[in-house]
This record gives sequence, C-alpha cells and structure tokens, in this order.
Amino acid sequence: MVALANALTEAYFRVRQASLALAAPLSAEDCCVQSMADASPVKWHLAHTTWFFETFVLEAFEPGFVPFHPAFRELFNSYYHGVGSRHPRAQRGLITRPGLTQVLDYRAQVDARLQALLAGPCAQRLCTLVELGLQHEQQHQELMLTDIKHLLSCNPLLPAYAPGPQRAVESPPADMRWLPLVAGLCEIGHAGAGFAFDNELPRHRVYLGACALASRPVSNAEYQAFVEAGGYAQSAHWLAEGWDWLQAQGRTAPLYWQRRPQGGWAEFSLYGLQDLQSAQPVTHLSYYEADAYARWAGARLPTEAEWECAAVQFAWATETGVQRLHPRAGAEDSMGAGEVWEWTQSSYAPYPGFRPAEGAVGEYNGKFMVNQYVLRGGSCASPPGHLRPSYRNFFPAGACWQFAGLRLARDA
Amino acid sequence: MVALANALTEAYFRVRQASLALAAPLSAEDCCVQSMADASPVKWHLAHTTWFFETFVLEAFEPGFVPFHPAFRELFNSYYHGVGSRHPRAQRGLITRPGLTQVLDYRAQVDARLQALLAGPCAQRLCTLVELGLQHEQQHQELMLTDIKHLLSCNPLLPAYAPGPQRAVESPPADMRWLPLVAGLCEIGHAGAGFAFDNELPRHRVYLGACALASRPVSNAEYQAFVEAGGYAQSAHWLAEGWDWLQAQGRTAPLYWQRRPQGGWAEFSLYGLQDLQSAQPVTHLSYYEADAYARWAGARLPTEAEWECAAVQFAWATETGVQRLHPRAGAEDSMGAGEVWEWTQSSYAPYPGFRPAEGAVGEYNGKFMVNQYVLRGGSCASPPGHLRPSYRNFFPAGACWQFAGLRLARDA
Amino acid sequence: MVALANALTEAYFRVRQASLALAAPLSAEDCCVQSMADASPVKWHLAHTTWFFETFVLEAFEPGFVPFHPAFRELFNSYYHGVGSRHPRAQRGLITRPGLTQVLDYRAQVDARLQALLAGPCAQRLCTLVELGLQHEQQHQELMLTDIKHLLSCNPLLPAYAPGPQRAVESPPADMRWLPLVAGLCEIGHAGAGFAFDNELPRHRVYLGACALASRPVSNAEYQAFVEAGGYAQSAHWLAEGWDWLQAQGRTAPLYWQRRPQGGWAEFSLYGLQDLQSAQPVTHLSYYEADAYARWAGARLPTEAEWECAAVQFAWATETGVQRLHPRAGAEDSMGAGEVWEWTQSSYAPYPGFRPAEGAVGEYNGKFMVNQYVLRGGSCASPPGHLRPSYRNFFPAGACWQFAGLRLARDA
Amino acid sequence: MVALANALTEAYFRVRQASLALAAPLSAEDCCVQSMADASPVKWHLAHTTWFFETFVLEAFEPGFVPFHPAFRELFNSYYHGVGSRHPRAQRGLITRPGLTQVLDYRAQVDARLQALLAGPCAQRLCTLVELGLQHEQQHQELMLTDIKHLLSCNPLLPAYAPGPQRAVESPPADMRWLPLVAGLCEIGHAGAGFAFDNELPRHRVYLGACALASRPVSNAEYQAFVEAGGYAQSAHWLAEGWDWLQAQGRTAPLYWQRRPQGGWAEFSLYGLQDLQSAQPVTHLSYYEADAYARWAGARLPTEAEWECAAVQFAWATETGVQRLHPRAGAEDSMGAGEVWEWTQSSYAPYPGFRPAEGAVGEYNGKFMVNQYVLRGGSCASPPGHLRPSYRNFFPAGACWQFAGLRLARDA
Repeated sequence: MVALANALTEAYFRVRQASLALAAPLSAEDCCVQSMADASPVKWHLAHTTWFFETFVLEAFEPGFVPFHPAFRELFNSYYHGVGSRHPRAQRGLITRPGLTQVLDYRAQVDARLQALLAGPCAQRLCTLVELGLQHEQQHQELMLTDIKHLLSCNPLLPAYAPGPQRAVESPPADMRWLPLVAGLCEIGHAGAGFAFDNELPRHRVYLGACALASRPVSNAEYQAFVEAGGYAQSAHWLAEGWDWLQAQGRTAPLYWQRRPQGGWAEFSLYGLQDLQSAQPVTHLSYYEADAYARWAGARLPTEAEWECAAVQFAWATETGVQRLHPRAGAEDSMGAGEVWEWTQSSYAPYPGFRPAEGAVGEYNGKFMVNQYVLRGGSCASPPGHLRPSYRNFFPAGACWQFAGLRLARDA
Repeated sequence: MVALANALTEAYFRVRQASLALAAPLSAEDCCVQSMADASPVKWHLAHTTWFFETFVLEAFEPGFVPFHPAFRELFNSYYHGVGSRHPRAQRGLITRPGLTQVLDYRAQVDARLQALLAGPCAQRLCTLVELGLQHEQQHQELMLTDIKHLLSCNPLLPAYAPGPQRAVESPPADMRWLPLVAGLCEIGHAGAGFAFDNELPRHRVYLGACALASRPVSNAEYQAFVEAGGYAQSAHWLAEGWDWLQAQGRTAPLYWQRRPQGGWAEFSLYGLQDLQSAQPVTHLSYYEADAYARWAGARLPTEAEWECAAVQFAWATETGVQRLHPRAGAEDSMGAGEVWEWTQSSYAPYPGFRPAEGAVGEYNGKFMVNQYVLRGGSCASPPGHLRPSYRNFFPAGACWQFAGLRLARDA
Repeated sequence: MVALANALTEAYFRVRQASLALAAPLSAEDCCVQSMADASPVKWHLAHTTWFFETFVLEAFEPGFVPFHPAFRELFNSYYHGVGSRHPRAQRGLITRPGLTQVLDYRAQVDARLQALLAGPCAQRLCTLVELGLQHEQQHQELMLTDIKHLLSCNPLLPAYAPGPQRAVESPPADMRWLPLVAGLCEIGHAGAGFAFDNELPRHRVYLGACALASRPVSNAEYQAFVEAGGYAQSAHWLAEGWDWLQAQGRTAPLYWQRRPQGGWAEFSLYGLQDLQSAQPVTHLSYYEADAYARWAGARLPTEAEWECAAVQFAWATETGVQRLHPRAGAEDSMGAGEVWEWTQSSYAPYPGFRPAEGAVGEYNGKFMVNQYVLRGGSCASPPGHLRPSYRNFFPAGACWQFAGLRLARDA
Repeated sequence: MVALANALTEAYFRVRQASLALAAPLSAEDCCVQSMADASPVKWHLAHTTWFFETFVLEAFEPGFVPFHPAFRELFNSYYHGVGSRHPRAQRGLITRPGLTQVLDYRAQVDARLQALLAGPCAQRLCTLVELGLQHEQQHQELMLTDIKHLLSCNPLLPAYAPGPQRAVESPPADMRWLPLVAGLCEIGHAGAGFAFDNELPRHRVYLGACALASRPVSNAEYQAFVEAGGYAQSAHWLAEGWDWLQAQGRTAPLYWQRRPQGGWAEFSLYGLQDLQSAQPVTHLSYYEADAYARWAGARLPTEAEWECAAVQFAWATETGVQRLHPRAGAEDSMGAGEVWEWTQSSYAPYPGFRPAEGAVGEYNGKFMVNQYVLRGGSCASPPGHLRPSYRNFFPAGACWQFAGLRLARDA
C-alpha cells in the first residue's frame, strides 16, 4: 500500500498543479465571470474541485476536521443533494468574494491537509475517493478550457487565451476509409483493475449488426462543403427538434465560425480568431449538427457500442499524452481519435446491471441519464491519463461549446 | 386485388367513421379550442387526417385533382416540410373558420372521392398510402381523446366527455409476479406481411442479459404509496432533470390527481372527477415520474427490447378490441397490457438499417428520433386493430397527458 | 323616479340587445376563442357583462337571490378581487362549456330578473349600479369588435366579420389646420349631472401654456409617408423603449398593414383585407408609433388637458350616433374626432382629489393607474351615447389592437 | 473665461477622483461582474464615463485626435445610437478584458488629455460638454454604489462594501407633520444660470390644488407596520400591475430586508447585514410598494410639481455635502430630504416646450420619457454638488435597487 499511496500522492500533486497551470494565463476577472448557465467560472472550477476533496475526503478521514470556511460547503457544491443545499448554478459568476487569491489559499490549505493524510496509513476507501477526486478534477480541467473559450468568445475584442503557434503549410487530411465491423456479439464496458467511472460498468455483451465506421472524424473542409451547399437552410437534413433549435439560435454555421467579409471562414479558438484550417476535424458541433451532416453525407452516427468495439479492434489511441488547446489535423496513426469528442447516436443510459456508487458520490453519473447523448473518444483538451476506450462523455443535444465533432458510420 | 381493395374500402369507412364518433359528444366550441401547444383541437385532428388522404392519395392518384380548398394544404399540414409551409402548431386553436360544419363537409367530400378511387383499379402504392393514412388516423383518434381530456381539465367546472359507468365494488389488483427472461439473443421489430410503421423495421437481433419484468403495470394504490411516502419531496429518487421539472411544474402528484379536502384522492377522467380507483393502473405519468417510482421501488424501467421479448414470450395481449375512455383494473389474462402505455428506458432511436419511407411521408417517424422515450403496449384509448407487440410509441420525458404508466423491471 | 326607471329600463334593453347584435354574425367557435392574453372571447364578454349585473345588482337587490350557476361568479369575474377569486385572464379561451347557447340563456334569465327588479320601486343605488353596468357593457361592446378583429387577423384566410361597403371614389382628407389654444387656466373633468366614470372626477383647474392642436387626426397617407421614408428603421425618431419594442415585434408598419406583392398597401379590417384608404385616419397604432410619427413630423402628442380644452373650445363631436366597423375619412365637421382614439402624452393618473367608488366596483379604474397612457375622443367602434369630452380611455404603450391613432400638437 | 476654466479644471479632477475613490475598496473581480441587466459593472461605469469625455470632448476638440483604443467606442457606449453600435447592455459583465488596470490607464490618459485641452483657450461649447460630462459622471457615481450593493447582495456571504459605523442608540424619528400648500399657480423647472439637465427645462407654470406634504419621508418603523399588518398579502392596497409584480417576484418585504429567525428584521446594506433601524427612512422601494403604502396609510404620493413647490417653499435641503453609504435618520432640519429619493406619482414626461440638446448628447433624457416615474430629492448616495430642487430622477415602477423611499401627500 505504501507504493500505491506514493503513486497517488504523486498523481495528486501533478493533477492539482495542472489546474493551476490552466488558470495561470488568466486574470482574476477572467476567472470570475460566467458566460452562460452551462459554463462555470474558472475560479469556481478551482474551488469546486477542492471542495470535492475537502467534503468527501478530509471531512470523512481527517481527525478533528474543521472546514476551511463554513460557507464553502454550499457555495462550491455543484449538484450533490446529499451534501445539502447549493448555490444556484446560473449565479456562480456573481461570487466575486472569495476572490481568486482566497480560492488559491483554499487549494493550498486543502492540498497540505491531503498530503498529511496521504502520508499516513491509507485506507482503501480513502484511496478510492482520492482517485475519484482526481478523475473528477481532470474532467473540470477540460471544462476550464471550454468554459473560458466561451467567455472570451463573448468579448467583441476576441482575446486569445494563449499565443497561437506558427502556422505551417497545411497538408490535406488523410483520405477517409471505411473500417468494417462484422456482425456478432462483442463486449463493451470497462474491464480490468484500473479506474473507471461507475457509468462504464458493468462490462456486458451487445449484439452488433455488420457496419463500418470512418477511419477519421469529419474535417472542417468536409463540413464546410455542407454549410456551403445550404445545409443550414434545408430542413430535410435535420431532426425536427434540430431544425427548431437552428431557427431559435439563428445559426448558419458552427459556433465560433465567422464568415470573413472578404470571403472564406475564420474560427475563434483559444489562440484568438484564426483562419479555418481545412484539414482539422470540425469541432463545436451540437448533436443536431452532427446528425444533420451525417444524414446529408448519406451516413449516420455510430452507436456507442459500435464505437467502442471499433476503437478496440482498430486500436484507436484516445490518449495523446498532453492537453492541447485546439484539435490537430492528420492524427492518422490514431485513426484521428482523441482530437475531438465524437457524438454517437446513443442516448446516455445505464448499462444493464448498473449500480451507482454508495452515498453522495453516487450522484456523480446516474442521475443525468436522460436527454443526453454519449460522446466517445476524447478531445485535445482532455488531460493526459484521463481516457479509456470505455469512457462515456455525455451532453445534451444542443451543447456545442465542447470540442465535439463526429465520425461517420454506415450499415453494411 | 379486388378482395384487398374491398377490405381496404371497408376499413377506410370504419376508421373514418370512428373519428366522427369520437367528436359526436362534443360541441363545435369543444372541437375548436387548443389547450396547450402539445395538444391540438379535435377539429384540427378531423381536418388533418383528411388532409393526409387529400394530399398523399387524391393529389397523387385522382385524375384532374382539385383541392377542396386551396388554403387547407397549409392550414392542416402538421409538420411535413416536404409539402410546403404550414400553420404554426401553437396557433391551431385560433382557426375558428372553417368551422366544424365545414370540416365535416371536407371529410365527406374527401371520403366520397376516396370511395370512387378505391372502386377503380387499385395500384399497390395507392393501397399502401391508404393503409398508412388509416393507421395515421387511428393515432390521431387516441390523441383526440387525450387532447380533449386535457382541454376539459382546464375548465374549472371539470366537465365530463361522457357519462361515467356505474362503479362496481373494486377488487384488488392481481398480485404482481416477476416474469423471468433468460439471457441470450432475441429478435425485435416487425415481422410478417401486415402493416407496420417504418420505425418498427428492420427486424434485428439484440442481446439481452437475464432480467425479469413485472406481470402487470403499477397500480394507483402502489403509486399512491410512493406519493404518500413523500416521493415528490425527495430528490434522491429523481433524475436531476426530473427534479428540476418537478420544481418548475410545482407538481406534488400525477396530473389529474386531486387531494380531496376530506381526505383521499380524486382523479379527473373523461367521465369527470371520480374517486381514484386503487386497482387501476396508474396513468398520466411523465417519464420522470415513472423512473422515480421505479427507483423508489428498487427496480427500474424495462428497455424496449426487454419489453418486446417478454410480450412475445408471455403472449401479452395489447389488443383489447375496443377503444375505451379509462384504463381498467384487473386485465390479468393479458398481463395488464393494453390499458396504459408503458414507459421504457429506451430513447427513441432508429433500428440498425432503418430507412424512412420515400417522399414527404418519410417525415413520419425518423425526424423525431431525439430526446423522446419509447412507450410500449398500448392504452385503453388506442383504437382496436391498431397495435402490435413491435409497436413503438414515443413522447418527450415531460409529457404526461397521454395514458402512460409503467411496468417494473429488474436485473436477474 | 318612475320616468327615470322607465328610461333606464329602455336603455337597459337597448344596450343589452346591442351586444347580441354584435355577436350575431359570429359562430359559436368565433365567440369562444381567445387570440391573445390582452383580448377576450366574445362569449366571455357576453357573460362577463351579465355577471356584472348579476353580481352587483341582483345579488344586492333581488330578494332571495339565487345565482344562475354558482361557478359563474369565479368564471366570469374579470379582475374584481373584492368579489373573490377568478379564472386566469389568459385562459378565458379554454372555457368551451358553458357554450354560447348557455351564455345566451344566462343573459336572458338575468335580463328577465333585471326587468322585474326595475319594474318595482327603484332605489337610487340600484339605478346607479344599473347605469354603471350599462356603461361597462358599452365598453365591452367596443372590445368585442377589436378582439374579434384580432382573432380573425390570426387566421391565414383573413375572414371578414361583415361584408364590406361599396368603395366610393376616395376624396382627399381635409387640409390639416392648426387650432390655437391661448395660455391660461382652464378646467377639465366631468361637469354636470350626467353619468361619468370616477376617473373623470373631480373637475379641476389646470394651467396650459400656449399651444396648437391639429384640426384632424393623422391620415393613412401621411403615416404611409413616414413608413416609406424609413421611419421604422431609424432609431432617432423613437423612444428608447419604443425602439426596443419595434425590434422585439419585428414590425415594419402598423398592425394589420400588409405590403401588396404588386406594390401599395392593404389593411386587414372587419370587412376583410382591403386596399389602404389614404384619406382615412391611421389606426391601430401603439403609443410608441404615435409618438415616433409626431417626432418625425416636428410636432408632439397633446396632453389630455390640451385635448379636452380644445375639444370643448372647438366643439368637437365625439359622438357619431352609430357604432361602425372602420374609421371614416373626412369627418370635417367634427374635426375628425370620434373615428379613432387619440393617444395623448399623458400617463393615466388620478385627478387631484380622486376617490374611487366604494366597494368592489371601486376596482373599476383606480387600480390601473400606472404605466398606461390616456386616449381621448372615441372611435368608430364606440357605441352611440357612450362618450363625453371628459372621457378617459387608457391602454399600455404597446397596445395596438384598438382603433387608436393620433392628432398632432405643438407649442406656440 | 480663465477663472471659469480653472474652476472647471478643478471640478474635473475632483469629480474624476471621486469615482476612483468609490472603486478603491473593491477588487478587480468586484468591479467586473454584472448582477442583473439593470445594473452595470463598476469597471464599466469607470470606462463609460471616460468614454463620454473621449467621444464628446476629445474627439470634437482635440487636434489630431486618436482614440485610446478603437474598440472602446462600441464597448463603452451606453445607449447613444448617434455614436454607432454598442455592446449589449445585459452583456457588460462578460468583458473581462480590458481589465480594471487597463481601464484605469484609459482614465489616466483621457484625464491627461483633458487637462491639456482645458489648459488652452476654452470654447464655450467645450466647457458646456465638460460640465455635462461631470454631471453625467456624478450620476454614475450613485449607480456605482447601488449596483455594487446589488451585486454583493447576491453573494450568500453578504459581504460588506465598507466597515459599518458604530451604532449609537437610536432615537425615534421626528414626528411627522403635514406641511400645507395653498391652491394656486406656481412655477417649476430650473431657473438661473447654473447647470441643469435639459429635462428640467423650460421653467413653466403649473396650477396646484390645495394639498399637504409630510414633513419627512416614511420611516422603517412605519413601513414595518404595513408589512406586519399583512400589507404584502392584501391586493386591495396595490395597483393591479403592482400586485402582479409582487406575485411574480414572490416578495413579502422590501428588497434587502430579511426576517431574523429569532424575530425582528435585518437589512442588507453597504455595511453588510445589519439590524433594521426603525428611525431611518425606508428605502429600496419600488413605485408599486411606495404607492401601496401610501394607499394603506390613507394618503397618496405627491406629484412632482407639488414636491418641487414644497421643497422651495419649505427650503428643503437636498444637498448634504457628502456622499454616504446609507440613509440617516433624523435629518429634521432638512425635512428629511436628501436621504432617499422620493417616488412621485408623476410619470416622466417632457415639460411644455421641452427641447432635447442637439446631437448625440440629446439622447440623454428625452428618449426615456415613457413608462418611468419621477423621483425627487436625492439620496445619501448622491454626490455632493449634484442636486437641485428642480432635479428629476426617473426609474421604471419596478426598480427597487436605488435608494428610493417615499413622502406622503394628501389633498386638503
């Protein structure tokens, strides 16, 4: 157990430090503001991930536990009814105090207390909760990037989160090939001893018909062809609800795309406004847009079972080893996986035999299993070490501020 | 083909007549008003089902076709973009002219023209479209009852659609038993030559784990126990979105339930306000309520594949031979099926290999395959001859004006 | 008192009959539906005006009073908190039962009972309340026309309430002259023994600066010039709130105006869609539109005190002796008054010393004295015998479904 | 002109410095966030008041004018259509960049350029615009306090803007006396050479009936009696629209009041949560609440003409010489004026002969003259030197985040 605890301690500080690194380029003001109800302030992410450790680890295991601040229990609770009341989600941006400095103090104090705790004899339950807390914080690390991107996009000055890389001459994306799956039984869901969320369990059999999946996600150039063919103006391509969503939003292209006055397209990114790169995978799509494109292209979205079986069979690498700010083109060796989340046609639902974890942490996944769609793969913004082929991300069909794209599928 | 055409002609007049019979107890005013955006006026149902025949049959097959009224094409189009523009759904109740009398004239004229058409040589495509039109009209017959029920429920006088039956002494519902399904492959989807909607196809294999389904739907008495145990006040039983829905609606019991000042419960029905009948299946539940009850009861909702396999294996009779105004208790021989629609945990999605029908009638099913949940079985209000074990009904999770209840399931 | 009671009885039946005449061209369906929250169904108007007599007269004066139907007290109460609870305003259109026939029975029974009451010895308080009830019913007679007009305008068929008159060759409107008012004290408010609403009292002094009012309301031709000069696209002409209203409504011309595909303008009227008549006074303006036009024309709206003083000094005839369905051009001898209500710049506020009537009827006027603007004059749709120069009509600034136009004013 | 320019220069730096002093206790985060659409971030106030000088003074008078930042013209425009487009009001809080530091740089640079300009020969038009800019900035100084107060009130920690004063033992408020006004003509509106806004002009005659005004505003103790007598639960006291507002808000006491669990009332103030002080004038009332209280108390709100005539006749001192954070009790020598703005029953409307200023600065007042009510007097938060008896403040009837109370009036 000592080695395990050492590894956990090391992981703890690595993950916690990574959150601070994400906030480093930002001012206290950047970290405080909430741009929409779906997004949260960076400061809130920094505090809430700390709250998780304080509430579920320190409060349970630290002798003589005293909270850092009694009001934080409510202020930085996200949605755990089991922990008591919570500050309304849409008002997270109104909390100017505690300021960023105090939240950093909060982090530092909790980290020191965790370090002390982890240095002692380490119960299994404690290790499990710390591990869960780290995985939880990694999820928020991705949200920190997508949420700050949305905030900066609301500023008419379109400021950059970070200076952009030098643009090399773009090479075209790899040709798209169809990867066949034969009909038959396969198993999906997490296997093995490593960490997985409860929603990836239990591993179970599914029967798949013969089908094929594309060898890489849809590119900007391909999606642009849809846009320029009038795809956003023809209801026939769209789900009825998707068409209504489109009219209500007044959207004529993906979020963050801008038509240049002189022609061509630009895309707002964490590097600021840049020319749209044809070879990169299209991103920031809603489910509705992904579905409409697939229909227009004479294909469909894969199911999550098809996706997972293909990922295993073709050894897609979802894990890119580093968190980046924008999806790359041409990740051929990994079949393009791991750059953008890929919408599946699967509604987010419990696996047969699903059991949520005991206690308040059991509110983590199960209670969101309605009116959300599963995304698979992982994105450039996913932290290293966080993903697995069995990983299930999920968002409502209208969400488009995530790094979400699509991969085509078709029946055999 | 003559016999087929004769049968079709006979079916045509039987189905068309049944719609008129549903409207018979109603005044022109009852038929005109729309009580919410989800519901439609009875007059609109009468006209829209006629529009379907006029647009998809007469216009395609009648020589020298002239529309009954040129404006009806737009006025009584529901959602077929392929047919052109349409009157906004939420404003269907504002159409006081044409009045009911003119709509009945419209029906009579279209019926006469259909009769002439069906008397001649009958192309396969024509028969197919007439059959589709009849199935479509039967769906609207069920909606006519649920929509008028909602409208009458908005009237403080709580008027009855029809005089209620004499109340016999109630017997308790049959004991609930668990019907086991063994793990393995099974097939779902429509088989055989009879009519089915495109969404029931293609028939395909699924793998099911071992599980069990209840021998009958949940009863009013059982659901009342949940209500009285504080089920509507404890977030732990509810999906997060369901809990938010509950707060927004301010609901503390199912739609149409009223707590009597003197104690006990009454339920608004098409017979007016009546004492809640313990043995009857609970109805007018949303998906959220069905899911919460199942969770509270230590069970879960079945998937649609589990439901269909069980229905076939245990020979549930969904077909009751007569359209009725309220679900009955004690339909033991049919395992209680066919009285209330049963929410499943399955999101409404295309079957593998799904292809919508060609042309505008292809907008019938596929474009609604997002953010809806499948209901199986059929209800008291479903017209006779309309249902099959493979039948897929679907509504958004918050819909509760349908005759929808639930049947419990559990993993083995 | 006998003569008075006779006159009152005669007036009672004349006014009550006039309401029925307004409903005569309408179907039960036309009378049932509510097209927006601001408008009410014609059936509701017929019932509510009857409710007024039943509640405030019969209940107070009839020995052994028994209500026609106990639920009507709540169902047909408009806004009198003093009478108890009431059916929500926006849901008046959901009441399909009682139907029109029953409401006509209600009217007939109440009328018979009133006749019996008025035939007996007639207390002053009773006469006062009957008189108030008749004035109240006349107000609803005007609303019946504007509400049914709005409802019919929502129907894509644009049906007519009544067949239109033959169109004579139009003569141009009279030249507009400025009628000067000299500075000084004048008195406004009701004087004399005749009926007036409480909001017209007490008569009181005001000081007016020197100014001038136009000799007639603004014509369609004049308003069309504003529209065609881009008046609806230039924020400089508009109150800030008016500009926001315009954007939110997406309005580019007055309500009921339609640009003809072939050029020129049509206007929906109670006669159906007709060519816009240049010489007629512009109507169906909101306060925002009236104010913007005046600003564009280098003038302003009059105050209500200016209007009343001018009306008396120049002997404007507001009373046209007959209720009509559309404003006429060229009512020169009456200075154009009495065809369209004229927006004033005066917010609806109590006169100095204002006292609402005692009891529930005191809720008639005073409680609406905020965020409404006074209109003066009267319209073609005002019933004969209803108006006085001191009459104060009032609506919120965004209301445009009334026959409301404007008359220009300017400082000397 | 030199003396005048010197005085103006001195005033310029005094007023500009005062804005900085208001922001001094605040963090960058406090200054960035917008708590509701009606309020603005403190940083926005600091920038917008600077924008006013840059746009209307420097751009017009500085040779070779170059803007500090080209995007600020749009970013910090409030509502001047004449200046071009503007950032949406409700999204002012999303502008995290420029940060507070850059906005302070903006202020410093504009101040230096103004100083240079004012050191030269000073055109009358320039002096006029600088004076207007200073008065404008003073208005924003009051809003800075009310807006930050609202923001802090949204924080469950209820942080204080500044440490509170030691509480002395409270003395009861002065007895309320009725100050009579005799009937007759009087004049209102600005007179003399000093600065006034265009909406205070022209001075003009009004006729007032005999009436009386209270010698001081309503106190917390008096208002508390209304609350505890059930005033918020009885519709009879309220304007119809006020009652609807109350239900929609769910309000049972004034904004910022909290019932203590142990009994009694607390009030959130810029000093944090404090015991409600009985003798202080009640504040943060909407028009609806002020009107309801007056009705309950058997009185009414004064008109603005009555208020101004009384203020002059009784020499009310609106000017308290220092900006403070909360209204004081017992300002008897000034008849209680200058502590809270006093709602009048007068709708905000142009005075007879009103002419807005030429050019974009003419958008200052006139275009808001609809659906707002005039407040008179001034509040503790009004900057010294800013007020006059003819000063007209105005807000919509539902606004209650200003320091607004009321003074009773009655007819003689």
